[in-house]
Amino acid sequence: MTAPTLDILAIGNAIVDVLAATDDAFLAQEGMTKGQMQLIDAPRAQSLYAGMGAGREVSGGSAANTLAGAAMLGARCGFVGQVADDQLGEVFVHDIRAQGIAFDIPARDAAIPTGRCLILVSADGQRTMNTYLGAAQFLPVAAVDPALVESAAVLLLEGYLWDPAEPRAAMQAAIRIARAAGRKVALGVSAVFCILNHHADFVALVERGDIDILFANEEELLALAALDDFDAALDKIARSVPLLVVTRGADGAIAVENGATRHVVAAEPVTRIVDTTGAGDLFSAGFLAGQAQGRAIADCLTMGAVAAAEIISHYGARPETDLRALVANRLG
Amino acid sequence: MTAPTLDILAIGNAIVDVLAATDDAFLAQEGMTKGQMQLIDAPRAQSLYAGMGAGREVSGGSAANTLAGAAMLGARCGFVGQVADDQLGEVFVHDIRAQGIAFDIPARDAAIPTGRCLILVSADGQRTMNTYLGAAQFLPVAAVDPALVESAAVLLLEGYLWDPAEPRAAMQAAIRIARAAGRKVALGVSAVFCILNHHADFVALVERGDIDILFANEEELLALAALDDFDAALDKIARSVPLLVVTRGADGAIAVENGATRHVVAAEPVTRIVDTTGAGDLFSAGFLAGQAQGRAIADCLTMGAVAAAEIISHYGARPETDLRALVANRLG
Repeated sequence: MTAPTLDILAIGNAIVDVLAATDDAFLAQEGMTKGQMQLIDAPRAQSLYAGMGAGREVSGGSAANTLAGAAMLGARCGFVGQVADDQLGEVFVHDIRAQGIAFDIPARDAAIPTGRCLILVSADGQRTMNTYLGAAQFLPVAAVDPALVESAAVLLLEGYLWDPAEPRAAMQAAIRIARAAGRKVALGVSAVFCILNHHADFVALVERGDIDILFANEEELLALAALDDFDAALDKIARSVPLLVVTRGADGAIAVENGATRHVVAAEPVTRIVDTTGAGDLFSAGFLAGQAQGRAIADCLTMGAVAAAEIISHYGARPETDLRALVANRLG
Repeated sequence: MTAPTLDILAIGNAIVDVLAATDDAFLAQEGMTKGQMQLIDAPRAQSLYAGMGAGREVSGGSAANTLAGAAMLGARCGFVGQVADDQLGEVFVHDIRAQGIAFDIPARDAAIPTGRCLILVSADGQRTMNTYLGAAQFLPVAAVDPALVESAAVLLLEGYLWDPAEPRAAMQAAIRIARAAGRKVALGVSAVFCILNHHADFVALVERGDIDILFANEEELLALAALDDFDAALDKIARSVPLLVVTRGADGAIAVENGATRHVVAAEPVTRIVDTTGAGDLFSAGFLAGQAQGRAIADCLTMGAVAAAEIISHYGARPETDLRALVANRLG
């Protein structure tokens, strides 16, 4: 096998975020649980959008956000995801390519539009997400080019995309190709509901040793381990995953290497938390970019913390400040 | 004539801003003058967008930005502008209505898409704008409903929209209706090129006494007066305009009332200038909202300065923080 030409190839949702300020009354009226993500259909997307405040549109998608951050930190990246031939699709594709990320999946016709995530941002910066997957859920297995998967040191999978059948099949195919080529597979489990809906699948992936790097937050870790004690859950999952990275919001993050060595990092200070959308995605970005640079785990964690701190200081899950300069300030 | 039911009715460009970070080298390579606005056609919009960095989409349009701020400050507002039946048109219309602004102009078919402004934001926060007017330039005279114009205490006109023929005719019709009904007419001259392209028109409007409130920045004032001395230009224009408001960036703003009384305000302090897009529009928003509340000119200027300071502290020309709370903090 030749040396990889990409650091990270990600398969994920190709969606545009629509972010608007909200208050608790609106969340209650719409029957939402603050801080959670739910999937919605087209009529619900229309009625919810009509009720939301004035928005800002920023390209999103969990794995795509991670790539945007990693690419800004110098990682060579490629993306696989499905947009429609419409204006939001153009926005998504433009932004991915503008970050220097390779992207070649043709748009579908616009009958089913490009996906969007309606994100309600509370005054404390917490975000509540309502995702209309649109075209993203029809990413076909045929979109997975074996040569492209083999060309990347790390295959990054977005847990959210495990829900719809076609992209799940595409990701399963990509895992087989990556493993056969001796590449690493990273998974962001994305949300508790993903784990609950597909618990057996995720457990099988982990226990089979298909996942080399696993990103989760505390709640997702507990759900995956089916335990209610954090340390026990950490130990359990770390036995099957060579590199387990768990983010803990304001309490920083922890990585467990080879089931034994623990590394912790504190959260970076933030003047004002504006919008936590993308905090986990950007933590992964900094961490994976550090890995691509061959840095020690402690430095990879710091890079994750720096990138996460940048993203929560403004609306949207794509970086607005040069992450490379921020990391250079912090790590030299 | 019955009492007005709207505080402000604005006629302006219905466009979505696409904001991306840039550097001086890119501006030079693309032949742009930093800080200026230019009109571009569809092929140029496409090629420039392809070369720009990753963007954020936020509803824009000078007069519409002013309304968004004024509505947030409690003013009763209506908007007249033209979008196409496409996704960016939906975004614009959603955002206007979400701000509580009355808007009823039907979308045109999508053959000519909704207008957009490609905005390159430099590290110092200065913005360089490239506007593809799209559907906005086809706002027909028929869109001006006399009863709607008569219902508003102030008719606000966007100077940018004086360039295309149909909206210019629409604004001329609206001026006649407003004057006949004894309403005030406010004009934002918007850009030096607008004044240079239509100098005779603007001078005639001002000298005929058709403009009750005029918003300009320093360069626009000098161009309109055809003078190179600020004080002389201020005196000249103030002779024909009952309320002349001139913004001076970091040096604050000045208002001249009835050709004689000068009021000045300092700029509000800003922690970090992120993006100056909309600074003038939001100054007008604060000022006009203060007028609608019957406040003294000095307070109207302060409200303008507060709204402008909010808008330059983040990307985009629509407020992200509750302006009413900011004004209450400042003025009580």
